[in-house]
Order: sequence, then C-alpha cells, then structure tokens
Amino acid sequence: MDNYSSKLLNKAVEQFSILPGVGKRTALRLVLHLLKLEKNEVADFSMALLDLKNNVSHCKKCYNISDEDICGICNNPKRDIQTVCVVEDIRDVIAIENTQQYFGLYHVLGGVISPIDGIGPQDLEINSLIDRIEKDQVKEVIMALGSTMEGDTTNFFIFKKIKDLRLTVSTIARGMAVGDQLEYTDEITLGRSITNRLPYEQTLRR
Amino acid sequence: MDNYSSKLLNKAVEQFSILPGVGKRTALRLVLHLLKLEKNEVADFSMALLDLKNNVSHCKKCYNISDEDICGICNNPKRDIQTVCVVEDIRDVIAIENTQQYFGLYHVLGGVISPIDGIGPQDLEINSLIDRIEKDQVKEVIMALGSTMEGDTTNFFIFKKIKDLRLTVSTIARGMAVGDQLEYTDEITLGRSITNRLPYEQTLRR
Repeated sequence: MDNYSSKLLNKAVEQFSILPGVGKRTALRLVLHLLKLEKNEVADFSMALLDLKNNVSHCKKCYNISDEDICGICNNPKRDIQTVCVVEDIRDVIAIENTQQYFGLYHVLGGVISPIDGIGPQDLEINSLIDRIEKDQVKEVIMALGSTMEGDTTNFFIFKKIKDLRLTVSTIARGMAVGDQLEYTDEITLGRSITNRLPYEQTLRR
Repeated sequence: MDNYSSKLLNKAVEQFSILPGVGKRTALRLVLHLLKLEKNEVADFSMALLDLKNNVSHCKKCYNISDEDICGICNNPKRDIQTVCVVEDIRDVIAIENTQQYFGLYHVLGGVISPIDGIGPQDLEINSLIDRIEKDQVKEVIMALGSTMEGDTTNFFIFKKIKDLRLTVSTIARGMAVGDQLEYTDEITLGRSITNRLPYEQTLRR
C-alpha cells in the first residue's frame, strides 16, 4: 500500500525515499519521527538543508566544500602546498584528515569517471587540477580514489594527462587492512600485499 | 572532526543526525547526496516536510494520519465498525492493512506507556478509545501492540479501563513466525506457542 491515508505523508515519504539506502519503510520511520518533533524543529531541519543548498560554496583551490573562498586546509601555512592528494569527494578529505598522517593539500574531483552514470572527465575537476599543478609547482600528486573500476579508470585517465609534467604520481597503498586476518583477506588484496611488500624496518615507523 | 570545513554543512549534518538510526557518517552521506540534486529538488524535499508538519491532521475517529476529518478506513461502509484494533502508530495500521485479513476499524494510540520516555496514559488516545467504545457500541477490542514491556504495560492499563464494559478484549496471537524453524525460536515464544496451541483444523483456514 503506497497510499498512507494522507497525500502529505505520502509526498514526504516519497521525498525521503530518494536518499541513498533509504527504502519506503525507513523513509516512513524517519518522516514519522520528524512529525513528532515541534514545528520549529522541523522548520530548522528544512532550513538547514535549503540554506546549505542555496549558500554552499566550494574552495576555489581544492573544491572542498567551504564557506570561504579558500578553505581552511588550503589556507593553512603549515601545510605542504606542493603535495596534492586527489580524492573523489569531501568525505574522503574527512577520512584522510582523521588519520592525522597527511600534511599536504587536497584536490576534490567531485566524483569519478563512470559512463554508466553519465559522468565523464569533463564533469570532474580535472582541468583545474592540471592548472593547479602548473601554477603551484606541485611536486607530488597522490591518487587516493576508491579501489573500484571507476576509481581505477579515473586514476588512469588523470595519470595519462599529467605523466609528462615534472612530478611524482603515486597511489595510496592497497593491501591487508590493519587488524585483518590473513585467511579472511580476499585473494586480489592479498596478492597486492605480497607484490607491494615493504622492507620490515619501514613498517616500524609511523 | 566535527567541523566539515563549512558551517552550513555542519548544521545540515547535525539536523540529519537527529533522525533515528542515522549517525554522523550516514547523515553526511545523505546531506552530500541532497547537495548533488538540483536546487528545486532540494526545495521540494524541504517543502514536503514543512507542508506535512504544518498541515497534517488526524482522523477524528481513529487518530490515523489523514487529510480528511474522517479517514478512508473509518469512512468505508464495508468495514465492521464494532471491531476496533488498538495499535501504537500508523505504521502498524499499514502493516495490518497489508495482511488483508482484517476488516474492522483501528484506534491509533500515538505511542505506548513508557515512563522512561516520559509517556504516560494521558499522552495517548486512551480516553477517546473509551468514548468510542460507548458511542459506537464496540463489541470487540483487539489489542495489537508490540510484544515489549511497554506494550504489555499499555495492554494491561487499557484492559483494566475497559474490562467492565460489555465487550470482548483480545490480543493478537504470539507464537512462532510462519516460516520459522523450531530450533531457532526463542524459548518464551516457543513456550507461548505451545500454551496457546490451536485445534489443527483451525490452522487450515485462512
């Protein structure tokens, strides 16, 4: 039964169903939860969303979401302007920032090449990456895209574009996750872990 | 890192985090998805929610969510007005309607008694249930609350209130789910299944 005895309810549930990973049942649960809140709380919820959509802007350098023209990371004088880590979206920036192991800047592509979703290289921030490499005399580009077919395609596309510029192109290591058991690691990952083995002393550093 | 390099983003993520079962990480995923939509789509999303909250009304008879004064179920002349199924919220109405096995009306309490959440009998549609029993000469009340401590408490409270009126009070059967294996059913449920066993012929009907 798609008709929840109320068109208004139906409409709200339909809107929530467009969210990724949210089916009709979850959507109904979320909507009914919101319905129990006070009117001003629901208004705050809606406004936060509209406000974000209407007023959001991106850092003009790395395309991270930012309220300023240049984001806090790009503006930080302690960070290495000549190392750029290429990521798919802002969630990846947050993930890498959380490791506290990276002190360069980022470049947020805004997606990966995915013909099936109609996303080509022209939809991504690739040209701005190349401009930036030249302008900031970037010495190393670290490709940190997801380990998927789309990620690999995008890696390859960008590598071809920048390989003749004077810089190092690296990709983040693929291998067994820390804390994983050998026997539960898939063959491809384990294979890469063996091929890309490191001198033992190097693993002692952090 | 709670600061997503943008206060607007931060605010939207915070708002989504109030939804049940949605943590910061999921909230960020949902917000970033919405951010990729067109402006008018995000506006539709917000409006559907505001519209529902500001204009929703409840059926004056059964307290189901409804755009009319009396909902489609209560207004259906084919349904048995003298049988009332008491449920916690509108999701339960949908679940029971989906069985296509029930032809009476409903009474939506709007919750269950839960001192820990500060919900007492006065917060639920219990008085209106009693009024209705008298007015519509209800012959049977079917208690269909969740099988939890709060549900049982509410069952007991309502039973005490209406047991002296001339009517049958029943509760939906508890027992092994259809399709379940005996060995994986918990002891309490299995115990109830045995205690409340039925004549075999009765189980052949649908």
